Amino acid sequence: MKTVYLDYGAATPLDPRVLQRMQPFLTEQFYNPSANYQPALDVRVAVEAAKSEIAHILGVKSSEIIMTSGGTESNNLVIRGVMDAHPGATMLVSSIEHDSVKQPANLYQAESVAVDEKGLLNLEELRSKLDGTVVLVSVMHANNEIGTIQPLRKISQILEAERIRRKQKGIVLPLYLHSDACQAVNYLDTHAHTLGVDLLTINGGKIYGPKQAGCLFIDSHVVLQPQILGGSQQRSIRSGTENPAQVVGLAEALKITTSLRDKEVKRLQELQTYLFEKLETELPQVTINGSKKHRLPNNVNITIPGVHNERLLIQLEEHGILASAGSACKAASGEASHTLQAIGLSPEKANSSIRVTLGRSNTKSDIDLFLDCLSKLLA
Amino acid sequence: MKTVYLDYGAATPLDPRVLQRMQPFLTEQFYNPSANYQPALDVRVAVEAAKSEIAHILGVKSSEIIMTSGGTESNNLVIRGVMDAHPGATMLVSSIEHDSVKQPANLYQAESVAVDEKGLLNLEELRSKLDGTVVLVSVMHANNEIGTIQPLRKISQILEAERIRRKQKGIVLPLYLHSDACQAVNYLDTHAHTLGVDLLTINGGKIYGPKQAGCLFIDSHVVLQPQILGGSQQRSIRSGTENPAQVVGLAEALKITTSLRDKEVKRLQELQTYLFEKLETELPQVTINGSKKHRLPNNVNITIPGVHNERLLIQLEEHGILASAGSACKAASGEASHTLQAIGLSPEKANSSIRVTLGRSNTKSDIDLFLDCLSKLLA
Repeated sequence: MKTVYLDYGAATPLDPRVLQRMQPFLTEQFYNPSANYQPALDVRVAVEAAKSEIAHILGVKSSEIIMTSGGTESNNLVIRGVMDAHPGATMLVSSIEHDSVKQPANLYQAESVAVDEKGLLNLEELRSKLDGTVVLVSVMHANNEIGTIQPLRKISQILEAERIRRKQKGIVLPLYLHSDACQAVNYLDTHAHTLGVDLLTINGGKIYGPKQAGCLFIDSHVVLQPQILGGSQQRSIRSGTENPAQVVGLAEALKITTSLRDKEVKRLQELQTYLFEKLETELPQVTINGSKKHRLPNNVNITIPGVHNERLLIQLEEHGILASAGSACKAASGEASHTLQAIGLSPEKANSSIRVTLGRSNTKSDIDLFLDCLSKLLA
Repeated sequence: MKTVYLDYGAATPLDPRVLQRMQPFLTEQFYNPSANYQPALDVRVAVEAAKSEIAHILGVKSSEIIMTSGGTESNNLVIRGVMDAHPGATMLVSSIEHDSVKQPANLYQAESVAVDEKGLLNLEELRSKLDGTVVLVSVMHANNEIGTIQPLRKISQILEAERIRRKQKGIVLPLYLHSDACQAVNYLDTHAHTLGVDLLTINGGKIYGPKQAGCLFIDSHVVLQPQILGGSQQRSIRSGTENPAQVVGLAEALKITTSLRDKEVKRLQELQTYLFEKLETELPQVTINGSKKHRLPNNVNITIPGVHNERLLIQLEEHGILASAGSACKAASGEASHTLQAIGLSPEKANSSIRVTLGRSNTKSDIDLFLDCLSKLLA
């Protein structure tokens, strides 16, 4: 039986070109990049070159790139780092953030900003909650469960207006915009200054790069307290001996996914449109969650009333189709998705929903197989 | 020219058997270990099996092993985690801890316990400073610069006496012993309960395993506040999608180094003794730093009066010999070693000192080459 992998939002395979670039650092070039002899300096050069490549793609300075152990650490560093550096200040997060934003935010004075029924941030609510005590706003670039793309540019303009207001009022508290772009990088522009963000999270494990290889853009004006202290690597912002294999792997993955972006967006949009249309005509009881317009081209999230998603996923797997109920991180918990509830679904409906996330291997025949299988199971 | 690598304390090459075991998880077994379909569950099984292997070697329960992104993160998690969970409590650290212990400790009420001129912890001072406010004592198993092995068993007995005193006095504050065993694992017994520790840090990058693959033994009775929050992986103690390649790699590295331990200790002790004896007879101006008796078999740390270590290291490198001035983490900083100063060396003498750390590839001919070269350079 053919296996059809439809869970690229949970994990992507390592691109063979990425592994190839990692290989020397898993073998002969094992030296500590902080050591002072030439073979170690060569490793240092490779690490710095990789960071420059990442910076170039994000349109930022190399010194503004910090390597971390993944998206979760990056998000924690942003929130804990900024909030620890500004005691007494508050923060705003969208109501559909990933747990790696939501949970550290809960340690501080954080308020949630609602999204509409498509998953788009309520900009009026953002404006009204953005008072002079807010130091950080964290809104993910595209949602991991429903693929909704947030209007980051507009959000950054709202923050800019508040910065101007503060300047006039003599309020010195800075105001930073952070975005978790883990799910967005494969498909959306990641130029930090175009997006208007001060902090941006990127994760290798979602872009055909190594797992637990993350990076964080930190604009040079951002004041942030380091969280992992020690040997003063990475200008003391993130101590710990770097893993050069992971660093060059992340750079290569980012380069490749950026170069493929336009073509993949077009290709996947066609598959997505085809899938949506087929669902609407052939399975009218199915509803599509999230925005169809402002959506990642690889994301499909649907509710099938009366069906228990975990049971359906097992049945799909029996036919070789691997999909998910939403965030893989929460797959084991059995909790109803907070994202689906935030866009207005009841816990029952949330538990009748599945997520399909497409990737490089998927073709129209995979979609047909999925549709065919789903039709039979719901018949 | 032959290159002689004498800096195994800074980085070890990946054992080919480790890389071989990692390989499937860098290729076809890329699934998210938290996903629910069979190929992902297979990855989860491999991750859990690797954690069990690690636990078995440490003589602890699998549920007491937490994977991290390396020794630095492990040490930070211990200190910040324990201290955040016990506000108002204090901690004690030896004066020769690695910066990944020293620096987070400085965020809290931490006191330093001195070492003697051999680098051994002053147990009397420990006893006198161990009052009812101390929740955590952190003493590294073996020092990264001078290789001094601490009497962990004796230290744990001192803590046990204090625990009994507290019980009698009705003091409910717990008291934990942490040890950073990053440099010790290759050569010393790592049974947590034999050592008497409640928390133990291990790092792949020093044991011929993957870099940025760490683990932490946390005894099940330890109360500790998680630092990296998110998707609730690893029982919420350390969120973030695990990197299965790193986890199995660390387990394999630990297995291999444990199986080689007795043989390597004997072999390296012979080389070390030979080197010490040759230095004493042929270069009497050289002094050996640290204890000769309580010392890692691969560590040599010497002071050569009147010589600037950075210059000497460059000259050695010109002859193909790669050694270091101490901790690689601090190689770039130019600061005089805090460890050497703690055992009584002046900053000048500390800056006249070099560290040689042997490993699996080194033979007697490497030692001869080093001695020969050093003699010529000092002639």
